[in-house]
Amino acid sequence: MKALVVDPPGHLRLSNIAEPALANGECRVRVTLAGVCRTDLELVKGYMDFSGVPGHEFVGVVTQGPERLIQRRVVGEINAACGDCASCRAGLGRHCANRTVLGIFKRPGAFAETLALPAENLLVVPDTVSDEEAVFTEPLAAALEIFEQIHVPPGARMLVVGDGKLGLLIAQVCAHMGARVTLSGRHEKKLALARRWNVEAIPSADLAPGREKFPYVVECTGTPRALNDALNLIAPRGTLILKSTYAPSDPPQIDWAKIVIDEITVLGSRCGPFAPALRLLAGGKIDVRSLIDHRKTLDQGLEAFELAAQKGVLKVIVRV
Amino acid sequence: MKALVVDPPGHLRLSNIAEPALANGECRVRVTLAGVCRTDLELVKGYMDFSGVPGHEFVGVVTQGPERLIQRRVVGEINAACGDCASCRAGLGRHCANRTVLGIFKRPGAFAETLALPAENLLVVPDTVSDEEAVFTEPLAAALEIFEQIHVPPGARMLVVGDGKLGLLIAQVCAHMGARVTLSGRHEKKLALARRWNVEAIPSADLAPGREKFPYVVECTGTPRALNDALNLIAPRGTLILKSTYAPSDPPQIDWAKIVIDEITVLGSRCGPFAPALRLLAGGKIDVRSLIDHRKTLDQGLEAFELAAQKGVLKVIVRV
Repeated sequence: MKALVVDPPGHLRLSNIAEPALANGECRVRVTLAGVCRTDLELVKGYMDFSGVPGHEFVGVVTQGPERLIQRRVVGEINAACGDCASCRAGLGRHCANRTVLGIFKRPGAFAETLALPAENLLVVPDTVSDEEAVFTEPLAAALEIFEQIHVPPGARMLVVGDGKLGLLIAQVCAHMGARVTLSGRHEKKLALARRWNVEAIPSADLAPGREKFPYVVECTGTPRALNDALNLIAPRGTLILKSTYAPSDPPQIDWAKIVIDEITVLGSRCGPFAPALRLLAGGKIDVRSLIDHRKTLDQGLEAFELAAQKGVLKVIVRV
Repeated sequence: MKALVVDPPGHLRLSNIAEPALANGECRVRVTLAGVCRTDLELVKGYMDFSGVPGHEFVGVVTQGPERLIQRRVVGEINAACGDCASCRAGLGRHCANRTVLGIFKRPGAFAETLALPAENLLVVPDTVSDEEAVFTEPLAAALEIFEQIHVPPGARMLVVGDGKLGLLIAQVCAHMGARVTLSGRHEKKLALARRWNVEAIPSADLAPGREKFPYVVECTGTPRALNDALNLIAPRGTLILKSTYAPSDPPQIDWAKIVIDEITVLGSRCGPFAPALRLLAGGKIDVRSLIDHRKTLDQGLEAFELAAQKGVLKVIVRV
């Protein structure tokens, strides 16, 4: 099959490779659309010494698997769990100690004609959700993960730092949940987009020290310096939510004393629940299509990755 | 009056100084006992460019103030709040933006014959609580602060890292609350003490990677390297509680990716509620007297600080 392959680490190319073998309980999915995520850009550059097929945001059609799924449109949870470790037994399959992760760790990803995932990872996409919406299920679930992890009262003041695609989506979701959201960023076009969603969107420069402090701050820039800046915008007893990882070569330097003295909570947040994400999409509650900047084919895959890496570009969707 | 004074920063001496003036609503307390805390040792060495009288753990007798408090034995919350800022209006007086802090920030402390605190900061000590127990109200409150901030189910597995006086107290309090507590440390004498309190106490070296991971880890060593070691002992979705500040000159370097990937919560935790601490002491529920290693007088104050700074020494109490 045709696929985008990282091989050796740091080098992405379009290639012909064998279809992934199906383990017991796994389905084959013919990929329809796949989205390029910031993590993909990092993996392709060599993060985690990644090799293989990247891609974990997808919608597709099941071609092999149990009868109830055959020919159904599906999206899929990206963490394939063992079902047997301490995390799995605690109901935290997304944290399975033996997991493989679609397009990220030990499982070929979605920038390919087909992929393999366990049947229990797949969710049927309601008819009212288009392919271009369904491909956002994974990042939307990641935004919802905040509300899975902590209690945020409706009406809470939240600051989302960073107007990239994840920041925009999180700001929209937080506003949807009832929070009074401020988004800070550097691109007037994106800030204007956020204002459509009942989000107060302001240039980063307006976040001067001495401004109002927030009980919840979501760091979505992924730049090390931004982390300490975000810390200075949190009210005592407030929560700093981290949605991006940082390269080990350039770790954030933060004011640890402030964390203790102001009793700040720093919360790491990663993959989220797919079912509520699909429900929100089915209800037409979240505008994801406005986040699409480019549509490419798998044959144009390298160009798709180049576009996605450009400053200010939002989601790039690849049709397989 | 006689007092221990830091002047200039970095230099502690016994001195004769004026009694602190009483602002509106403040009481004068004749100090009976004061305890030396790790923060005092840092302040005396120059932390926060501190000058003045250190000391924030005390029990004393009110000599000036409202009738109901005169000649009563008291302990006192160390944060004096303005009552008017956003934190105060949110019920978080301990985080008042305009606060003074006894013996730490803009308010002379307890290593002196008298101190001044607002009447609302003072709590009368029940007759069943001795002076030597009451002087532990402040650190005991700091241990209880963990349970004020987050919900820890009874029966939770907790690891307390560090067998200093705060680590020992926290391990004991967590066990009292029903948690299954492991304490790791370097001093067999202290580990033996913890075992009396129904705590599993083990040498730090036994915390090898690959061991059981804990949902709650309390970092009480205050050493930067220990922070990342502690992080590696936390189960996915677990909580790392920080009870010590770190010098800005030597900040901890941690694996930030792990915080996001494992969805770790890092919680800063500082001063706690005095009333429940006094109730636990009154009920004889917490053994604090075993933590006293030395008893000195105010005239022996410099010696008291030298003793407290020695490796392995637990609480040093100063009689004024």
